[in-house]
Amino acid sequence: MTAPLPGRALPDTQQGMRRRNLARVMHTVSAEGPLSRAAVASRIGLTRAAVSTLVDELIRSGLIEELGPERPGRVGRPGSALAVSAHGPAGIGAEIGVDHLAVCAVDLRGAIRARAVRHGANRGRSAEPVVRELTELVRAVVADAEREGLWPAGLAVAVPGLVARDGRTVVRAPNLEWHDIDLGALLPEEFALTVDNEANFGALAELWLGEGTPRDFLHVSAEIGIGAAVVVDGQLLRGTRGFAGELGHVPVRPEGPPCPCGGRGCLEQYAGEEAVLRAAGLEPGEDRVGLLAGRAAEGDTDVRGALHDAGEALGVALTGAVNLLDPESVVLGGALAGLAPWLLPSLEAELDGRTAGAACPVSVSRLGSEGPLLGAAHWVVRGVLDDPAMVGERA
Amino acid sequence: MTAPLPGRALPDTQQGMRRRNLARVMHTVSAEGPLSRAAVASRIGLTRAAVSTLVDELIRSGLIEELGPERPGRVGRPGSALAVSAHGPAGIGAEIGVDHLAVCAVDLRGAIRARAVRHGANRGRSAEPVVRELTELVRAVVADAEREGLWPAGLAVAVPGLVARDGRTVVRAPNLEWHDIDLGALLPEEFALTVDNEANFGALAELWLGEGTPRDFLHVSAEIGIGAAVVVDGQLLRGTRGFAGELGHVPVRPEGPPCPCGGRGCLEQYAGEEAVLRAAGLEPGEDRVGLLAGRAAEGDTDVRGALHDAGEALGVALTGAVNLLDPESVVLGGALAGLAPWLLPSLEAELDGRTAGAACPVSVSRLGSEGPLLGAAHWVVRGVLDDPAMVGERA
Repeated sequence: MTAPLPGRALPDTQQGMRRRNLARVMHTVSAEGPLSRAAVASRIGLTRAAVSTLVDELIRSGLIEELGPERPGRVGRPGSALAVSAHGPAGIGAEIGVDHLAVCAVDLRGAIRARAVRHGANRGRSAEPVVRELTELVRAVVADAEREGLWPAGLAVAVPGLVARDGRTVVRAPNLEWHDIDLGALLPEEFALTVDNEANFGALAELWLGEGTPRDFLHVSAEIGIGAAVVVDGQLLRGTRGFAGELGHVPVRPEGPPCPCGGRGCLEQYAGEEAVLRAAGLEPGEDRVGLLAGRAAEGDTDVRGALHDAGEALGVALTGAVNLLDPESVVLGGALAGLAPWLLPSLEAELDGRTAGAACPVSVSRLGSEGPLLGAAHWVVRGVLDDPAMVGERA
Repeated sequence: MTAPLPGRALPDTQQGMRRRNLARVMHTVSAEGPLSRAAVASRIGLTRAAVSTLVDELIRSGLIEELGPERPGRVGRPGSALAVSAHGPAGIGAEIGVDHLAVCAVDLRGAIRARAVRHGANRGRSAEPVVRELTELVRAVVADAEREGLWPAGLAVAVPGLVARDGRTVVRAPNLEWHDIDLGALLPEEFALTVDNEANFGALAELWLGEGTPRDFLHVSAEIGIGAAVVVDGQLLRGTRGFAGELGHVPVRPEGPPCPCGGRGCLEQYAGEEAVLRAAGLEPGEDRVGLLAGRAAEGDTDVRGALHDAGEALGVALTGAVNLLDPESVVLGGALAGLAPWLLPSLEAELDGRTAGAACPVSVSRLGSEGPLLGAAHWVVRGVLDDPAMVGERA
């Protein structure tokens, strides 16, 4: 098997080839390390001399560490085992939720090395004070990471809304009541910034950290709205404006109740958290999923009925999505993961019944509501693995 | 502007780089020729010496022709203008329709050089005699092309059904009543073969030959079924099994009439040709679109009403697709292009009304029912442009 190709395109020149080969070495050591130089060379199909030059460069940049000589007993001269550095760059992930802010630092080995959370409703607050609080959390997490010898390679922020393809502007986050907010102008300039929809980062977390996640799948998540992310051949499908994945506004019943989006009978009107709470006769509070899951577990028939109907609507909308995209699986993540036991039976009955002989399996994310934050931090880490030369130049 | 990168991945080695550079030269000369060697070199950013070596190789393989010295009056030594060959490889495109068979040969410059059509119902016939007739047409077209100095670089066949990712097996073509037919085993072995869904080839034709077609769009077409093809960043989205684009089975009304697919209220039950004929009180014959378009043009209120309702159902299904995929536009092709005047008003009213503030423009293909056949032939031609070294080795 050849090492994975970097996900970001690099120019097709000698210099580009060197950068791609640095990425190959990083990905190989990251996925299979500790490895000797000779083992890396055999895995990526380059000479040992070429690999040594690349490895030396990565060691100088602080991206790879030598763990000391390998144990004797192997054939040939003992080599030094290589591993990606636990004291080099870290990905800083952040999440602006409707009810919380969270930040974490993840090292190149994928370990969470620092973390901070602040609970409290952000709905209806203007962006400035929210981002100011987030910045305090980011600075605290970076300070913790630096004490462990790490340095921030970039900041990725997950938001519950649509993000422009510039990767910094929140075009529309209805559940925060934000419109056209340039987060790049509000966050500290020293961090290389990526802003993306929480469903996208959740899907990437599933792709990178989930067990046995296929490279073609549809990731469905919810906070208050319902979002989805389409992963095709290991890449997010973003859409022309960056708005792909709006499963919540797929019409389920064309003459159904009006939706703030301008449509009628959208999925969100049947399976959004607030619609389910309303159907169950409950008031929306802060821990909406916890409330629904708790009542459902206790056997509350109104809540179970509301979740059954929500699952049915999800099944109809997913039938359309599966017919259009032919994914290998559907993964329920975010808040939906916690409600899966009561959503899945009716969801699967609709989906299987409507796609006879071509059923698409539905699974439940183990990451649940942690997905977006982890996906954001790993986005930065993957950026380092995909183009280590860039970090080397900056380091 | 740099020359387009080849669409097929080539290995990242020195040899792979040479092949990619050959492709760059071919694409540049194809898109902008006639060009001198110096002009090619400046466009792709290689030295004139490197480009000359590549060009000589392409001339030896018969893929590029020298048109003789350029007119004097320009600065410097006159160079010889280069063009892609009109006497080299040709793409052979074929279409198995429900009511016809068609084959054409397209040269590297995109000109149709030979063509054959046979009308007659193929529905319910077994694959062997149909493919035998198609083979006769292929041989006739190849003979015509060879008389013009061309040779077949490959054969691509468009079929009205789902094709496995092996690019040769028709898994399901309900309107031919074919299941699991390996066309590779029935067609002459001497042609490099690609089989694909007619909606996919139609979309590629739109991408390559349409005017101002964006690189992200949804192409909707119909023969008897309704199919769609999703083009993302200039590439077809195929799905895990190769079944992506089944817009015809997106549920429009979850409790609607049963569909042979196993679902209920699928788009095809409202907007498929047979559903529209039924709604208009007409019998399905051979020229279904011609019949509907003719009656609609005459002002037949039943037909116009049926097409209005079909447009509405298309608008609902497309709302879901646009929310999921965020394409830059929707293109109506195939049979739908001929019915567009009567489908579009209600289709656009639904789509615009349901996607307030984020309307996705709908356009009508100029290629219409020619799309799949042209897309198939150009598939082979693009294969030559994308990897000329492979043809050189075979030539």
